[in-house]
Amino acid sequence: MSDATTTISTIKQMVFQYREDRDWNKYSNLHDLTAALSIETGELFELFLWKTAPEIQERIATDARYKERISEELADVVFCALAISLATKIDLTDAITKKIAKNCLRYPVNEVKGNAIDKGMTD
Amino acid sequence: MSDATTTISTIKQMVFQYREDRDWNKYSNLHDLTAALSIETGELFELFLWKTAPEIQERIATDARYKERISEELADVVFCALAISLATKIDLTDAITKKIAKNCLRYPVNEVKGNAIDKGMTD
Amino acid sequence: MSDATTTISTIKQMVFQYREDRDWNKYSNLHDLTAALSIETGELFELFLWKTAPEIQERIATDARYKERISEELADVVFCALAISLATKIDLTDAITKKIAKNCLRYPVNEVKGNAIDKGMTD
Amino acid sequence: MSDATTTISTIKQMVFQYREDRDWNKYSNLHDLTAALSIETGELFELFLWKTAPEIQERIATDARYKERISEELADVVFCALAISLATKIDLTDAITKKIAKNCLRYPVNEVKGNAIDKGMTD
Repeated sequence: MSDATTTISTIKQMVFQYREDRDWNKYSNLHDLTAALSIETGELFELFLWKTAPEIQERIATDARYKERISEELADVVFCALAISLATKIDLTDAITKKIAKNCLRYPVNEVKGNAIDKGMTD
Repeated sequence: MSDATTTISTIKQMVFQYREDRDWNKYSNLHDLTAALSIETGELFELFLWKTAPEIQERIATDARYKERISEELADVVFCALAISLATKIDLTDAITKKIAKNCLRYPVNEVKGNAIDKGMTD
Repeated sequence: MSDATTTISTIKQMVFQYREDRDWNKYSNLHDLTAALSIETGELFELFLWKTAPEIQERIATDARYKERISEELADVVFCALAISLATKIDLTDAITKKIAKNCLRYPVNEVKGNAIDKGMTD
Repeated sequence: MSDATTTISTIKQMVFQYREDRDWNKYSNLHDLTAALSIETGELFELFLWKTAPEIQERIATDARYKERISEELADVVFCALAISLATKIDLTDAITKKIAKNCLRYPVNEVKGNAIDKGMTD
């Protein structure tokens, strides 16, 4: 299985089934799931703390265990986001498509291209 | 387009193209992308703050604009996670499959089923 | 030493000296310090995850080690905030006094008293 | 009032009184207060996003409104941390003194001085 052949629904179903097998879908209140997302984001951040961008990239290229740890923490982040999409019945493809379309209007290519000041990733 | 028919690669490509069009892929250092993820997680959390779980679910069911705002903030969260997977060349399907397999060994169904104490979502 | 007799400057000086002894004040860029704050906030959050408010309060009252862990994580959070105030030369007393004064105008007592909808803690 | 002359208790009392005046101390569950801390940390982070350390320092030195915004967001962060210390009856001076003492044993000066690899700020 890889990103090239796996649909978002399939990966959502994996998250759902893992939690269903353990009878954990009942713990799907959004406060806790978002707290979990916040905690996992912190754990991902720990891997980058006090390191410069070139140091991080070099370590990813040379230290397989380091890259694996990033991979595991990023998996946890996405797991939480998918659990939130399940708990809210939000279609992520639809949500991202609409948000990008909205951002395209807000940040027209000819106005912002290469502009470091306002990179419009977080609004 | 919907989660049922869209591959992870397709949605990653949408994120890549949006940033490429604006010449923003050069701003892909992991410190900033993870900071952006953390900021977006905070913005999602704002929508749930000071509300009980039933209040949140009722508002999702009755207030279309509220659900849309959750959808937009969740889209931003996932956008950042996808940008991180692009910057690190991590296959998310592979990462999540492996992490769930690891968690299945750590939290065997017969030991943890329905157990509220240790729900193994954040390690 | 206790909160009743210790000035903010004294506790800032403790943070400064701890880092100075280790020659760590050179690592005071705000990106990393804020990332550290975000990580520590996540670690504090882990202690409350999947627990209801009454469960948390009961455990604080009955489990000394639990309360100690909250105390340690909260100390780490405040440590990072103090390091940020040192790196930016911000007087916290002045900053908080002004912010509360601003919030008092924004949330007049007669308008918001006991109002659960908009509790004005995060703007 | 300044950090040099203000005790931690005084500033905690300011936070308590602001919330008491509005009858908001009843909203002191730790899940929400920690979520608020996490949101405020994100808002502080927004001010540093996509900026290099020298860019941030230069802007602090030259743009009074920028420094004021940092000051306001940092005030919100500390406000939340103080509200958590009130809700848990944790003496911050005691907590930080003990945590630094513990870290001093974990990171002896002669072993870690100037060591960029492990800077022991987040454990």
